[in-house]
Amino acid sequence: MTVNIKNIPECILWENNTLTLLDQTQLPEQVVYEEQHSIEQVWDSIKKLKVRGAPAIGVAAAYGLVVGLSGDVDKTKADFLKALSEKASYLDSSRPTAVNLRWAMDRMVQVGNSCPQAESRDIFQVLVEEACRVEAEDRELCRSIGEHGKSLIKEGMGVLTHCNAGSLATGGMGTALAPIYLAAENGVSFKVYSDETRPLLQGSRLTCWELNQAGVDVTLQTDNMAAHMMQEGHIDLIIVGADRVAANGDAANKIGTLSVAIAANYFNIPFYVAVPSSTIDLSTPTGKEIEIEQRQKEEVIRWGEHVTAPTDIKVVNPAFDVTPHSLIAGIITEKGVIRSSYLENLKKNFS
Amino acid sequence: MTVNIKNIPECILWENNTLTLLDQTQLPEQVVYEEQHSIEQVWDSIKKLKVRGAPAIGVAAAYGLVVGLSGDVDKTKADFLKALSEKASYLDSSRPTAVNLRWAMDRMVQVGNSCPQAESRDIFQVLVEEACRVEAEDRELCRSIGEHGKSLIKEGMGVLTHCNAGSLATGGMGTALAPIYLAAENGVSFKVYSDETRPLLQGSRLTCWELNQAGVDVTLQTDNMAAHMMQEGHIDLIIVGADRVAANGDAANKIGTLSVAIAANYFNIPFYVAVPSSTIDLSTPTGKEIEIEQRQKEEVIRWGEHVTAPTDIKVVNPAFDVTPHSLIAGIITEKGVIRSSYLENLKKNFS
Repeated sequence: MTVNIKNIPECILWENNTLTLLDQTQLPEQVVYEEQHSIEQVWDSIKKLKVRGAPAIGVAAAYGLVVGLSGDVDKTKADFLKALSEKASYLDSSRPTAVNLRWAMDRMVQVGNSCPQAESRDIFQVLVEEACRVEAEDRELCRSIGEHGKSLIKEGMGVLTHCNAGSLATGGMGTALAPIYLAAENGVSFKVYSDETRPLLQGSRLTCWELNQAGVDVTLQTDNMAAHMMQEGHIDLIIVGADRVAANGDAANKIGTLSVAIAANYFNIPFYVAVPSSTIDLSTPTGKEIEIEQRQKEEVIRWGEHVTAPTDIKVVNPAFDVTPHSLIAGIITEKGVIRSSYLENLKKNFS
Repeated sequence: MTVNIKNIPECILWENNTLTLLDQTQLPEQVVYEEQHSIEQVWDSIKKLKVRGAPAIGVAAAYGLVVGLSGDVDKTKADFLKALSEKASYLDSSRPTAVNLRWAMDRMVQVGNSCPQAESRDIFQVLVEEACRVEAEDRELCRSIGEHGKSLIKEGMGVLTHCNAGSLATGGMGTALAPIYLAAENGVSFKVYSDETRPLLQGSRLTCWELNQAGVDVTLQTDNMAAHMMQEGHIDLIIVGADRVAANGDAANKIGTLSVAIAANYFNIPFYVAVPSSTIDLSTPTGKEIEIEQRQKEEVIRWGEHVTAPTDIKVVNPAFDVTPHSLIAGIITEKGVIRSSYLENLKKNFS
């Protein structure tokens, strides 16, 4: 297959000073792009997970802040900067645990406040450019991860991924999916296997959809089929994203990643994690220090109107798990692939 | 907990010459027991998976055949035996691949034909007793498996199971769940963790329901959480059923079992398979010779009315996987637990 990367679907569009978001909650049944006309609407879109994935939230919020400030350009500089600060806090409240959201808002406020311009309209223009820069940087980060990772994918391979770390989670072509898109663009012929990723099905709903849209050869499987597919020789390489990588290389990612990594290790299949270097948190010594969010039981026992378990049943629902660095063949970053002796290499490269 | 095994729900009832089946397709939302008034209704109940699990199908069909013959008792012996043969073939056609179904029908036909009695009414009574014997034997088989396995379960343990190998799959208290029920009856305090078992959710719909009904402490998790729960120290023992065990001890069971076994091996947690010895097939040398049924993609991409993946996506849907004997700590049978050197021990015990 040769894939034109222009066909990769985007979840955030900024055209003619208008922000449009893909409503991911309706995928794959409906493909609905919604113009965002107010900051309240953007807040709601983030809150309701219409836009999700840490980098994508950061980009959407940067543009969303600009949407919210468009009516403030006739104010005095002091009032404009006050609105900037208030609206940044407001957007930040849409998903309190999203690190990139806080980071993007802080960056926009800082840029606004350090503007030498006297006119609010001029400061607004600087902020528009800054939001575009946030997106462009994320796009470039994704592409660099892809460039460093794409040579791992050889002709005829089967590549497994878990959850969604693609264009629907970032301002660019994703992290884990970036090597896949670039290898496909280069004409390498290979197959992608996507775990459905219970309970929220980011794999079947989002990863399958975006790879399919882009023309990548993708096959869906339930999470519990991964080991069997490895045993049968269909999988040669695994690439996943991560929410946080500890200083020793342990990686926290969507629940189920650990299971894939252990099976890959058993069958001697290389398991890679693709992240921007900002995801590597040197202040967290090991995976043991990463707290695992427990989510509500309803996600596991219901499906639309259908109850799939006794409603009084006890349920565990950890959102993430931690894969020990000993199971990880390498971490693909925008600066290159870190292959071994994680602790030393991480410190050398990023501290 | 101390569980009264009388509270274990039964899926097949035979009282006052009336057959009643639990409609498992409606679990856990509705608990509906349906009296079976004709052989056509029994055929339909097997076909529609209202009764499922190889041993349970055999028991239900034996009783179903008796239901079908109750109107033939005034016929001549020759006509009665002709009806026996025809109706056995008819019921056997409800699920052509169910080995226990064929086995139960052959057994009933043979018993009928070897009856010395001259009166159809008397032969009918022999067949009623034979159907009761089929059930009683299965019940005893389950209990013996439970007796041999129950001492594996110690105070405070977490015991993981996958799919449903319980009272809803057999004429008794199940295979994998029998040690659990008997340990609970003995007052051992422990927790059960049930994988939901995608795509058909036998774990959440059936195993959680029956354990909950019986008063066993059970917690539901998605399949991809199993490795995390092991890593966190919640799981001390794994017991699953199997559809077929090869001569070398390799075990074919519901898809996802292999993934659990590999993770258990990684975390040094003992992994047991519980089966009646009839499930051990000495004519199959290894798991490699076991063909894996591929099922339809609709099971993976739809949930009631909801589409959860692009409908044109490629899907794999193997119904089973094969766990190599090297990952199995022991096979719990009605004759005892076979612990090592599978090939020799299996041949010694069962050939």
